[in-house]
Amino acid sequence: MKTRIGIIGAGPSGLAQLRAFDSLEKEGKEIPEIVCFEKQSDWGGLWNYTWRTGVGKYGEPTHGSMYKYLWSNGPKECLEFSDYSFDEHFGKPISSYPPRPVLFDYIQGRVKKSGVRKHIRFNTAARWVSFDEDTQKFTLIVDDLVNNKTYTEIFDYLVVATGHFSTPNMPYFQGLEDFPGAVMHAHDFRGADQFKGQNVLLVGSSYSAEDIGIQCYKHGANSVTLSYRSNPIGLSWPEGVKEVPLLENFDGEIAHFSDGSQERFDAVIMCTGYQHKFPFLPDEMRLKTPNCLYPDNLYKGVVFNELPKLIYLGMQDQYYTFNMFDAQAWVARDIMLGKLKVPEKDERLADMEKWLQKSHSNKTHDDEIDFQTDYVKELIGMTDYPEFDLDTVASLFKKWLKDKEDDILRYRDKTFKSVMTGTMAENHHTEWLDEMDDSFERYFSESSAPEKNPEKEVLMQR
Amino acid sequence: MKTRIGIIGAGPSGLAQLRAFDSLEKEGKEIPEIVCFEKQSDWGGLWNYTWRTGVGKYGEPTHGSMYKYLWSNGPKECLEFSDYSFDEHFGKPISSYPPRPVLFDYIQGRVKKSGVRKHIRFNTAARWVSFDEDTQKFTLIVDDLVNNKTYTEIFDYLVVATGHFSTPNMPYFQGLEDFPGAVMHAHDFRGADQFKGQNVLLVGSSYSAEDIGIQCYKHGANSVTLSYRSNPIGLSWPEGVKEVPLLENFDGEIAHFSDGSQERFDAVIMCTGYQHKFPFLPDEMRLKTPNCLYPDNLYKGVVFNELPKLIYLGMQDQYYTFNMFDAQAWVARDIMLGKLKVPEKDERLADMEKWLQKSHSNKTHDDEIDFQTDYVKELIGMTDYPEFDLDTVASLFKKWLKDKEDDILRYRDKTFKSVMTGTMAENHHTEWLDEMDDSFERYFSESSAPEKNPEKEVLMQR
Repeated sequence: MKTRIGIIGAGPSGLAQLRAFDSLEKEGKEIPEIVCFEKQSDWGGLWNYTWRTGVGKYGEPTHGSMYKYLWSNGPKECLEFSDYSFDEHFGKPISSYPPRPVLFDYIQGRVKKSGVRKHIRFNTAARWVSFDEDTQKFTLIVDDLVNNKTYTEIFDYLVVATGHFSTPNMPYFQGLEDFPGAVMHAHDFRGADQFKGQNVLLVGSSYSAEDIGIQCYKHGANSVTLSYRSNPIGLSWPEGVKEVPLLENFDGEIAHFSDGSQERFDAVIMCTGYQHKFPFLPDEMRLKTPNCLYPDNLYKGVVFNELPKLIYLGMQDQYYTFNMFDAQAWVARDIMLGKLKVPEKDERLADMEKWLQKSHSNKTHDDEIDFQTDYVKELIGMTDYPEFDLDTVASLFKKWLKDKEDDILRYRDKTFKSVMTGTMAENHHTEWLDEMDDSFERYFSESSAPEKNPEKEVLMQR
Repeated sequence: MKTRIGIIGAGPSGLAQLRAFDSLEKEGKEIPEIVCFEKQSDWGGLWNYTWRTGVGKYGEPTHGSMYKYLWSNGPKECLEFSDYSFDEHFGKPISSYPPRPVLFDYIQGRVKKSGVRKHIRFNTAARWVSFDEDTQKFTLIVDDLVNNKTYTEIFDYLVVATGHFSTPNMPYFQGLEDFPGAVMHAHDFRGADQFKGQNVLLVGSSYSAEDIGIQCYKHGANSVTLSYRSNPIGLSWPEGVKEVPLLENFDGEIAHFSDGSQERFDAVIMCTGYQHKFPFLPDEMRLKTPNCLYPDNLYKGVVFNELPKLIYLGMQDQYYTFNMFDAQAWVARDIMLGKLKVPEKDERLADMEKWLQKSHSNKTHDDEIDFQTDYVKELIGMTDYPEFDLDTVASLFKKWLKDKEDDILRYRDKTFKSVMTGTMAENHHTEWLDEMDDSFERYFSESSAPEKNPEKEVLMQR
């Protein structure tokens, strides 16, 4: 009997796992039988934009958290696959911060080329998993959403690649139920247009708050107020954008903050993060963790310590993304093939403990970048995933942080050099703040016609 | 071993089932062991209002579809419990169309008095059900959401009381992904305030479209347009509200309709109905039905024909609500106790076929009311649920339909006489169109201060 591997999710992590096996198959090696289950009707995970919020066509919770006008918020040179460069995909240099459709096209290019789509069953949701100690096999019950049919599959290994930026964490604030305007989580934000002319309150101080705030500013909100719990983002915001301390409660449309200030708002967007949620797993198989760089109980960040045949991909908070998922998927592949041996529990615990301790000593963002760089380096050293210059990538991340501090409205106009190919990125034909169209067609159009964003006279507050 | 009964859902149907057993226990009879699992943190189902949309605190799909300013859209005299009257609960006459908090208070009164809350495990989601043919028992896996723990319970009977107005049915229209304004399903509508001054498009022609349309009108939308697929609702709409034929597609913020007309909108609300969705059941146990008065495969509308130990409550489209759920729950109770015998499959099929045929001959709303009246009559005749004058209730329903036709803005100012107690409803202190506050406190306040709704000069279009 061939080894059977089940993968749940065909987003960047699940696709990385498929590609990892594909790369072996291309070398003429035999690979296990693989079935990947994807709830959505297409691959790409978060990158597969949906206009839907709440639940999807078949009533499953919507996976997508992306919005119209989403542009990469980090340089593409930091997420480039080492086995499939931007040059190979686009045939020419492009800018460092492409919009979502362009990055989605890149992600798809590699897997289209590899022919892994045949392993994926779309519109299929994982319902329930059990593990039989005697047979050492997983039973996975899935739901074919189109045909309203459930069925069971048996696997030797199970790879959970369902992401962790899809299930909102949404706190309650007193009076919120009587706030008259729109109240939504960032997960359900689908574009800034509906907030044009409005006074928008964003609760949170992480990437979502920063980017959705700037989106609302760019697309014509009257004012954007970001409320932080512990520390402000602390960037130089343009006029019309400001940070205030923690929201305490609402009184009708008035929000009260912990510094005693108050303000009237038209809409509230909760940028309050996401939960690691695995409703299809019994709780003893669930990864239970906050969003952090080194979730506990995952050996090498992928092997579930209590049940090493259960693999999690991409469950870390992320500086590195696509190429880290690759590094993880290649390690997971070699573990599932028996090429890499998973040590005994004691040794796993010691290894995890070492990384956990290391993670606790991170103080600055630069420390965090160095930490995740070291982690990815270790993974890449374990397999044949093509090596690349991670120290330079780390320096690009640090430059990126500095660029954002220097000018949150213009950091996306910067360009970087690929560590994979040495290619220098091109300037996009239009400055980000003036570019109101995020389509693939517009991005690759020759005519730039860079009209100035009529609403934005950029004046920094400080 | 005592018979064990599992109930999924503590909304009106699940509570009816608990109350049905409670009524026997009050007579000194022994009852089975009952465990009721409720995903929300409180009972009441849809009547337990939540400000949340999308998913709840623990990441489960939000059950609630109700909104601020929701008033009963049918006379309370049609939904009165025959074992717990409005008089008994409120101690005085109230109006015929109370707001949500007042009706919720009434529903809770009966179950608070009965002490059935001890059977309910809140914040607990059903994950997966299986049925063992050998033992003839159900295994139910549930998820304790607060503690992130899954566990298993064994039951002799399983009652599915999860409702069918919680999982949106949301069609796609070309261009919808580029519509710049808010796009939501009625399920996520939480109040009309956010649409003040806006031009709102509602897709659909059933209760949701009618009531949300009128809500938006009442609370200051600039215009309300309802798009129907087959037939218009056809009421006399006030100025500012109109019906148009089927939406065909969007071009930016412009909607195009099948009559060639087009219009610019600020927001789209899909009032396109709900799915019967049971993700915790294997498909062979799922009720698969559109929303209709007599779903197939349910003997007496409650017993799942393929597996008679599986009971469904409240799965019908509804004129009758609370008292129909009672009638069903009393029948289900007596079946589970063995007091009522479920006949063999042939006989069940013949009985279902009779009702199905009957339902197919319904042509008018009055026919439908008569059909459901006959159905509820039959159920009540089977148990000791207190009988009441169903023919008079049917006539109230017919009067209600006529009142709506006469004046969609004023039908809620009408009053009816209770068939249970003979009590005539009181007029509410303020006309519905001028009553902007739906709170319990306001409803029972003595001071009426009926300011005229300043935005509404009511002029009928025709």
